[in-house]
Amino acid sequence: MSKYPKQLTSAHKRFLADLFPGEDCILTPEGMAPFSADASLERAMPWAVVRPKGREQIEELLRWADTERMPIYTRARGTGRVGNAVPSLGGVVVSVLKMDSVLEVDPVDSVAVTQPGVITSELQAECARHNLYYPPDPASVKISSIGGNVSTCAGGLKAVKYGVTRDWVLGLESVLPGGRVLRTGGRSHKDVVGLDLTRLFVGSNGKLGIITEVIVKLIPMPEASISLLAGFSNLHSSLEGARAVFQSGVLPAACEFMDRITLQAVREAGGDIPLAASAEAALLFKLEGTEEGVAAEVRQLSAALKSVNPVSMEMGRGAEEERIWSVRRGISPAAFRIKPTKIAEDISVPRSQVATAVERAHAIGGNHGLTVLCFGHLGDGNIHVNIMHDGDIPSEVEAAHKAKNEIFRLAVDLGGTISGEHGTGLTKASFVPKQLTALEMELMASIKASFDPHAIMNPGKGW
Amino acid sequence: MSKYPKQLTSAHKRFLADLFPGEDCILTPEGMAPFSADASLERAMPWAVVRPKGREQIEELLRWADTERMPIYTRARGTGRVGNAVPSLGGVVVSVLKMDSVLEVDPVDSVAVTQPGVITSELQAECARHNLYYPPDPASVKISSIGGNVSTCAGGLKAVKYGVTRDWVLGLESVLPGGRVLRTGGRSHKDVVGLDLTRLFVGSNGKLGIITEVIVKLIPMPEASISLLAGFSNLHSSLEGARAVFQSGVLPAACEFMDRITLQAVREAGGDIPLAASAEAALLFKLEGTEEGVAAEVRQLSAALKSVNPVSMEMGRGAEEERIWSVRRGISPAAFRIKPTKIAEDISVPRSQVATAVERAHAIGGNHGLTVLCFGHLGDGNIHVNIMHDGDIPSEVEAAHKAKNEIFRLAVDLGGTISGEHGTGLTKASFVPKQLTALEMELMASIKASFDPHAIMNPGKGW
Repeated sequence: MSKYPKQLTSAHKRFLADLFPGEDCILTPEGMAPFSADASLERAMPWAVVRPKGREQIEELLRWADTERMPIYTRARGTGRVGNAVPSLGGVVVSVLKMDSVLEVDPVDSVAVTQPGVITSELQAECARHNLYYPPDPASVKISSIGGNVSTCAGGLKAVKYGVTRDWVLGLESVLPGGRVLRTGGRSHKDVVGLDLTRLFVGSNGKLGIITEVIVKLIPMPEASISLLAGFSNLHSSLEGARAVFQSGVLPAACEFMDRITLQAVREAGGDIPLAASAEAALLFKLEGTEEGVAAEVRQLSAALKSVNPVSMEMGRGAEEERIWSVRRGISPAAFRIKPTKIAEDISVPRSQVATAVERAHAIGGNHGLTVLCFGHLGDGNIHVNIMHDGDIPSEVEAAHKAKNEIFRLAVDLGGTISGEHGTGLTKASFVPKQLTALEMELMASIKASFDPHAIMNPGKGW
Repeated sequence: MSKYPKQLTSAHKRFLADLFPGEDCILTPEGMAPFSADASLERAMPWAVVRPKGREQIEELLRWADTERMPIYTRARGTGRVGNAVPSLGGVVVSVLKMDSVLEVDPVDSVAVTQPGVITSELQAECARHNLYYPPDPASVKISSIGGNVSTCAGGLKAVKYGVTRDWVLGLESVLPGGRVLRTGGRSHKDVVGLDLTRLFVGSNGKLGIITEVIVKLIPMPEASISLLAGFSNLHSSLEGARAVFQSGVLPAACEFMDRITLQAVREAGGDIPLAASAEAALLFKLEGTEEGVAAEVRQLSAALKSVNPVSMEMGRGAEEERIWSVRRGISPAAFRIKPTKIAEDISVPRSQVATAVERAHAIGGNHGLTVLCFGHLGDGNIHVNIMHDGDIPSEVEAAHKAKNEIFRLAVDLGGTISGEHGTGLTKASFVPKQLTALEMELMASIKASFDPHAIMNPGKGW
């Protein structure tokens, strides 16, 4: 028997409607429908959706929810790819989108203080007005929120130089089940007093509490940026090229790769891409720094790449930089020309295993009669694996899921992880024990119980 | 009544001597004395010292220790400043110095795998042979170990650009009480599966388990480095200078400051320092990158500093760079010319509060008739506060401790932390509740209990 309620009672509904007046409490199916899904194919209807305007309402909500054993699903922009925000066991969805103010950008402290519902690119724009830089840039940066980014420990293109969201969070204010307010860290850039609860919260996927305020570290805005797209005759020489670049002493802000099948898809979609027709693999670099520093890095990087005979090299800065990135941005629409449905996974492996991972992923796809595109963040060994299939053909759906399963096993076998960025949520929940040991899972469960003894926070998900 | 044994029984001693043959088990007072203290003034004799050669011995030790409720104090080079490695309740000191191999430096994966007893600068040298860089550099880098650095989340000079130890640890192997082996993270640069146990271990000060292997992330070695020492007529204009530098878009690898009293001490010690005699505050910058990039940053930085009229600016690269840093290295010996004893604290505050913190720290010293030197990592707001006094004069010792107490209160009042680098150990244990909330401490205790249910790991210390 579930420990959770089976539905909302009228007393529950009254409580929620009182606490969240007017449109801030949604109880109708048509009103709740937009809150039932994220960017995965998962979907489940909540029993209620509430939209707090501030922390105090969340405190009262979580006091009530803890007593009532009510499942709570925190949600921001719903851009997650693994169903993590989907209210799979029923319960209350808490949308933090009304808490969407950048509270402060302080150039002297070099921090920003923000509510969770702010779109990350808007936070970045606000920082840029002070010539300050918040580097993490998940692909969703223009549509996802900083609260969601912190909850998932979002990665992105520039992690190779700047690290992931975890590396930029200095402090958090959160509300825990029972309505307890937890403040960790602060505006100090260094702090070693106590266990690191701040970073424990980063990437905890809404399973410990609701984040109500975030303090991030900022750095001066780099003066210049330049991008370079290099084509290679095959995957191996592209990876050799990347090795040569890192060995030459250059640390690019981004180092992306695209495999043959990805390039073919982009070409067939008719994009005008600045890449030789003979290229069967490509690397895409972005360099950031001073004007002179970036120019020097371009020279070093070009020299390093030339040692492995690229078939083309195109560089772009300013408006031209966008053109260089068109190939990368063209992948997603192009993929859907192959098949109407994709399973988009994001395994990560040690950098030396990228070639093996890509080749075996292709072979796994081939064995199941499916096309598999591999591209992504080579600098981190983070490979986006798109398994293309037709969601209306049951045999293809089955084959795609088998392929996915095998690709996860492959990632773990190569010393990697089943997720570098997306998390596990619903879609990968059953694969988590393939990667984590029983001891890790036991410790995580025990830590979670310290924060959420009645397991009301985002239940039913993988880690 | 303590839950711990009061001493070792002969059965205990036999067990330890069997598990750690010959010189690897030390039971004599003269043999154990060197393991009784760290770089603080704290001291306590252990009941035994053991020196494992590998993980298997540690597994067996912690199975036994958990059953026997035996306090376990992990120790590496003993360079800590807060008594964290001191066996204050008696028990067994575990020295990891025989586990001192760099197991692997992998240029393709861009990681190093190391045992905990390796001296950090030796790890860095090993990486440098592959043109790779492990950036964290605590002041103790030439004498402290990577295991100790991970345990304390060591900071250092270059944190302003590169972050602290936490930001570089990708994976850990540890042994928990009961002999359970915990492996977290790995060689993937990105991993978001599960709660972040790896970073929870970083900075946990030996209170969760014994770290037996560390995987760190590496980046390409910067090509060039240049340092610049600027003198200012007063503290405020030096801080204005630092603001101007960050505002100009330069992110230095290091940004140190020294106050008037510190400079006076260094000058009186007769050092030939490249700084105008009229300077009453100084900033010390280090820039790292490509040759051209560093040259451009020096130009930007100099221009920014000139806007606040420094009284001197000296630059150094190569062999000359050492000369620039002589002033910084001269502080510690110079301080002891003022008084024979120091309390060296390391508060951290939001960067905007540094001037206030320094001025108030001086005033606090003055009120107690003591000289207080302030210097340190301005870029992080991390201020080393040295309270000079004579340890043989009880009234001065008392005054110094009162001043320390007031300085901790000051740090917390300014939104900062009582420790940016050193941790709390024994010397700051009683101050921890001034900074952490009851909820934070409750959560930390509960998390610790998940790893160490019988509280055998480093008992008797602050967080």
